Amino acid sequence: MPSPIPPMSVRPKNRPAPVAWLLAWALAAACLLITRSAGASSLPHGDEAAPAAEDGYRLWLRYVPVEEPWRSRYRASATGLIGAAAMEASPTLRAARAELVRGLSGLLGEAPRAADAVTRDGAILFGTPRSSAVVKSLSLDLGAVGAEGYLIRTTTIHGHRATVIAANTDIGVLYGAFRFLRLLQTREPIGHLDIAASPKIRRRVLDHWDNLNGTVERGYAGDSLWKWETLPEHLSQRYIDYARACASIGINGAVLNNVNATPFILTPLYLGKVAALAGVLRPYGIRVYLSVPFSAPVTLGKLKSADPLDPRVQAWWTAKAAEIYRDIPDFGGFLMKANSEGQPGPEDYHRTQAQGANLLAQALAPHHGIVMWRAFVYTTGSHSEDRAKQAYDTFKPLDGKFAGNVLVQVKNGPIDFQPREPFHPLFGAMPRTNLMLELQVTKEYLGQRTSIVYLGPLFAEGLRDDTWVKGAGSTVARVTDGSLYGERLTAIAGVANIGSDRNWCGSIFNQANWYAFGRLAWDPDLSARQIAGEWVRMTFTNDRRFVVPVVKMMMGSREAVVDYMTPLGLASQMAGTHFGPGPWMAPAKGIPADWTSTYYSRADAGGIGFDRTATGSNAVAQYAPHLATQYGNAATCPESLLLWFHHLSWDYRLRSGRTLWDSMVLHYDQGVASVRQARKTWSSLSPYVDRERYRLTADFLAIQEKDAEWWRNASIAYFQSISHRPLPAGAAPPPDTLAHYEAFCIPYVEGSPGTRPACPPADVAVPR
Amino acid sequence: MPSPIPPMSVRPKNRPAPVAWLLAWALAAACLLITRSAGASSLPHGDEAAPAAEDGYRLWLRYVPVEEPWRSRYRASATGLIGAAAMEASPTLRAARAELVRGLSGLLGEAPRAADAVTRDGAILFGTPRSSAVVKSLSLDLGAVGAEGYLIRTTTIHGHRATVIAANTDIGVLYGAFRFLRLLQTREPIGHLDIAASPKIRRRVLDHWDNLNGTVERGYAGDSLWKWETLPEHLSQRYIDYARACASIGINGAVLNNVNATPFILTPLYLGKVAALAGVLRPYGIRVYLSVPFSAPVTLGKLKSADPLDPRVQAWWTAKAAEIYRDIPDFGGFLMKANSEGQPGPEDYHRTQAQGANLLAQALAPHHGIVMWRAFVYTTGSHSEDRAKQAYDTFKPLDGKFAGNVLVQVKNGPIDFQPREPFHPLFGAMPRTNLMLELQVTKEYLGQRTSIVYLGPLFAEGLRDDTWVKGAGSTVARVTDGSLYGERLTAIAGVANIGSDRNWCGSIFNQANWYAFGRLAWDPDLSARQIAGEWVRMTFTNDRRFVVPVVKMMMGSREAVVDYMTPLGLASQMAGTHFGPGPWMAPAKGIPADWTSTYYSRADAGGIGFDRTATGSNAVAQYAPHLATQYGNAATCPESLLLWFHHLSWDYRLRSGRTLWDSMVLHYDQGVASVRQARKTWSSLSPYVDRERYRLTADFLAIQEKDAEWWRNASIAYFQSISHRPLPAGAAPPPDTLAHYEAFCIPYVEGSPGTRPACPPADVAVPR
Repeated sequence: MPSPIPPMSVRPKNRPAPVAWLLAWALAAACLLITRSAGASSLPHGDEAAPAAEDGYRLWLRYVPVEEPWRSRYRASATGLIGAAAMEASPTLRAARAELVRGLSGLLGEAPRAADAVTRDGAILFGTPRSSAVVKSLSLDLGAVGAEGYLIRTTTIHGHRATVIAANTDIGVLYGAFRFLRLLQTREPIGHLDIAASPKIRRRVLDHWDNLNGTVERGYAGDSLWKWETLPEHLSQRYIDYARACASIGINGAVLNNVNATPFILTPLYLGKVAALAGVLRPYGIRVYLSVPFSAPVTLGKLKSADPLDPRVQAWWTAKAAEIYRDIPDFGGFLMKANSEGQPGPEDYHRTQAQGANLLAQALAPHHGIVMWRAFVYTTGSHSEDRAKQAYDTFKPLDGKFAGNVLVQVKNGPIDFQPREPFHPLFGAMPRTNLMLELQVTKEYLGQRTSIVYLGPLFAEGLRDDTWVKGAGSTVARVTDGSLYGERLTAIAGVANIGSDRNWCGSIFNQANWYAFGRLAWDPDLSARQIAGEWVRMTFTNDRRFVVPVVKMMMGSREAVVDYMTPLGLASQMAGTHFGPGPWMAPAKGIPADWTSTYYSRADAGGIGFDRTATGSNAVAQYAPHLATQYGNAATCPESLLLWFHHLSWDYRLRSGRTLWDSMVLHYDQGVASVRQARKTWSSLSPYVDRERYRLTADFLAIQEKDAEWWRNASIAYFQSISHRPLPAGAAPPPDTLAHYEAFCIPYVEGSPGTRPACPPADVAVPR
Repeated sequence: MPSPIPPMSVRPKNRPAPVAWLLAWALAAACLLITRSAGASSLPHGDEAAPAAEDGYRLWLRYVPVEEPWRSRYRASATGLIGAAAMEASPTLRAARAELVRGLSGLLGEAPRAADAVTRDGAILFGTPRSSAVVKSLSLDLGAVGAEGYLIRTTTIHGHRATVIAANTDIGVLYGAFRFLRLLQTREPIGHLDIAASPKIRRRVLDHWDNLNGTVERGYAGDSLWKWETLPEHLSQRYIDYARACASIGINGAVLNNVNATPFILTPLYLGKVAALAGVLRPYGIRVYLSVPFSAPVTLGKLKSADPLDPRVQAWWTAKAAEIYRDIPDFGGFLMKANSEGQPGPEDYHRTQAQGANLLAQALAPHHGIVMWRAFVYTTGSHSEDRAKQAYDTFKPLDGKFAGNVLVQVKNGPIDFQPREPFHPLFGAMPRTNLMLELQVTKEYLGQRTSIVYLGPLFAEGLRDDTWVKGAGSTVARVTDGSLYGERLTAIAGVANIGSDRNWCGSIFNQANWYAFGRLAWDPDLSARQIAGEWVRMTFTNDRRFVVPVVKMMMGSREAVVDYMTPLGLASQMAGTHFGPGPWMAPAKGIPADWTSTYYSRADAGGIGFDRTATGSNAVAQYAPHLATQYGNAATCPESLLLWFHHLSWDYRLRSGRTLWDSMVLHYDQGVASVRQARKTWSSLSPYVDRERYRLTADFLAIQEKDAEWWRNASIAYFQSISHRPLPAGAAPPPDTLAHYEAFCIPYVEGSPGTRPACPPADVAVPR
């Protein structure tokens, strides 16, 4: 359902404008008046004069009117639209046309004229040489853009200036259409274009951890996007708008269900629903994938075993794959979480992870399906010496053993999506295996719904990290995009932060992480800052008075979380819900060591940090020698990873000359200060934002400030009880006792599995 | 966030109109074009020409432009708006003003002129004698409308014709404002008004079965409306729009949390959130109430006991009540589900339900709070002879024992919100006790999210049922509104069907049940048909070509469900999820008898039905003698309740001359036919509805047709396996075997407690 455009809300001050422009504004204002006064969704009472609110549904595809002088310039280059007008056009080309009409109408205030030939300056042509005779006649050099890329070029046709959006495939054209619109949305000139673009990674996938009962594991944006109960009959408009948003940033795959999978997804009942979704997503270039449980041949197929070497098991998967492809010919494949956190897997049958993966690969291969096999394999407590080493120890010996249509899916860090981790040592360590990168877009450990944390810097840092396996420049990005080892099957996955909430992601700023993941999946070399700039311009306004401070705020937001949660390479200090501080959490009955905070902090009277050098777990040896040496020496180890690799005295001197203890405290304070600054920044920007998005963000920043203080105070109170060091000068003592912080508990936290409260009611001591 | 008005979408054919009108249309159309083309929420690709969609967010408060000749007439009576313009006006009066501005702007295409004196014909004045000197000067006879009622009257002021909306209280004015707008929305004349209205029941309450973890028990519309995680900081616009919708139909209370309550709601953490919500709802006349667990003094207060006679327990509740009222001075009170389905209660301490209720009542009394104490008390299996008798047996002896601020809350029927039940025998049986009626607005047993079942007839039937306790006319409505026994504390509750879904209720037609509950709570004597008409006109269009068939479809929709699920007085034949047929469900290990279908159907070779006459459980004796006689004799018992009260031979002849078996089959067929007819009706109405609401309803009717067939076929297959009778002529045999229907299971059903699938995966045999 279209939302009204509040054209004035994001541009508080207008320059003098010609009459036509004023008329357009009058029309828009009248429209605003009517729409605003018209419904149950209006503003709070007493706020008649405020600009109309936006609810975030339109994401970065708002297409609000462009201001002069850009508008006149753009209009001169958008006088007509040529392509895919015929009913025979493919659904993808029709989607491209619809998007161009929608976008240009919104941006330029008038629908582009449909044309079938270039008869004046300013036509926009789009299509493939196959679908369009005009495009074909231009004899464009489309070889380099491949199957998903596109060209956007200013050219001359019959003596008239025109813009052509061309590709080898229909989906390339759709991607080009979104790119063209983005140029206008971000006020780039479009008069002399010569753009060629193609994605560096082939499979760019969102992993939805959505359960079939409608909940979302680690979801902070409401229910599942997929309404299983009303599928296949009802195809919600949201599915289409999801697909549009994904296509606009080049995402071309969606794993529909949680990696903690149930076999129900493979029943005919659910496969019918999956096929219906696949049909909706297909025109937007998005393949569907499914998470499957390794035990499905037993639980669903009623076999006695799920042993990958059992021919009956192989036959079962082969038949199941064939059944899926009968209805979904472009089905992407399976995602598997095996032998991890209680999930079944090949090790249950004394088979290797490779044997397990190849079982599925064999079933999918005839249909060109792939297997994404997670390296996040651990049996709680089994690798108690250092869980960070387990995936490497398990998978490294299997290099070369995986079938060609298997990708081993590796998280960016060796533990689990912490605010900061070193890159995972498997990157670069398996030259004969397709490796893919798994990022987490949903902020499981980074403040969840309410905290404003732009993950672009985290993603980019992970991609830029240099594995050194083939010398300098052997980045994780080059492992992922296949250029380091010459792989052809390449992929990247992001654990989605998308739910049923009206604003999709639980907050406006969480949308930026979906956007950043898509953009980096398309091109891992993009800068996080550039991506933030694009997103801010499209989501809010191009006014520099807004863009500059907001980009700055975003760029600092991840380091703020690192500072107030886990500075200097600490990790996993969260409460059991992964929300709020729990540094005191220690192994106890029913809680394995590697699910506790003290296991990771190793804080004691002597110091703090996990010794992963040769004197400790020697996890450094899993890295290339250059890094093993660098990380293995506290003096050369990056301070941001110091306590990840080293156990150091509280009095250890950092490069600043300050002690480790003093530095830790200063980091906590710096994190809180950073959030306070963000609040201040945002509060100065209300003139540039509509009221609804302004309030939501301001309220969430207020929550984040309290959370940051809670983290800072609880962490300092706890670690000081161990370090017995005084606070550095100027640092305020925590206002409450450690017992107070330990007692405080939020009983229900979104996105946590199960519905049991996190503590007994009497422990809910005080509001945070 | 305002939704765009699609003014043309609901009125496909326009009459010739004057120039001003055409201009307005042009403006609206231009507005439509801009808004439609502007965002991620647009229509599916390839549908540029379709009218703009509506997503149902605006409920019945859409305020779309009125057509001529009504528009000119209404404009003549809306030339200015006088009242509550000052900043000192109360929040409630400001809400009234905002609603009138919003409504009149939308309906009439221009904002009403603000005025402070009557200087021309057509002014609208609103206020109380206290807040408005003009209103005071009119010396209106406001005595009869009480604390919540209002007058709307055409009058003459300074020689000018004016409309006054007046009340004794600000909330009465707000109710009057909504009523005035409804007159326009439903095209009633407003030139000569003389309306006096006041609610017949004092507390008109929605019970939200919302859990603190965000799920909703028996919720079929997404998550909880209340976002506990972001309270108290963030006050969503949805809270305000919820309050507006409630106030528009006179609902004045909301129990925020599930009757299966947790003590967390009484912690300071959550009470702070509750206070924030109370602050949002207060201007709209809505008090908040909370469900509380009887054991809270133990689980939260750390006492050894929750015994109502223990002074420490009394002191704990007294202190807790005082704590609540400190922050929420108008807090409504507590709702209690005690000794029911595993919930703790006074019987755990060998105390009566009255002793339990009075414990809370005593704590709340100093603050004028009330207790709503549910009569839905049963211990599974304990009253195995006939669960329908248990509440009466438990509560009837306690008549006169409850404190004056206690209401015993009684479901409409003696079992549990079935498609049809007789009225609950407690109504009329407790003359010295405040009784309140509990209705279920959410369709737990009536097809849940997707089925279109208008509950107006069910609610009205329950209210109109005559208890005969003081002779003819002793209706349930007169028990509830206090007129039968002269009670002053009167109340009615509806279990809400409202969630986080954009359309609030999971489907458009489910909204009608929220509306109908509110309207009947205000005036239990309203007809269900009139309410349906109002709702259709406001929700869709006033075009009679749409209104007449849709009202007809709605009015038949409840009987259709009765026919295809539980005809002739059958009840509780649902599967364990309360969705889909499960007539074969029999007592088994872990499943108590009174949670099974065969317990209720009592089907055997000899016949079917639950003998509740003197030869059976004698539940008929719980009714007044007149009814006991009528119900107790199969020949005089209404056929719609026949199998509720009688076990009869399959060959028993009904009044039609047909056998019971043949009649049952015909009812199943009639139910299916009725749904098919509804589909046909709806499919003929697409020109009158926007595409999004049309599609959603059409798709849901397609699902309902399958469900109805499933119910019909499974029920006939099962009962035929017992009756061994042939199908009557013309009835098609079920297409599958009984084993097939028994095996089929939907593993995950919305709104069911817990997240476990309803059956093992291998049992999910075929798509329905």
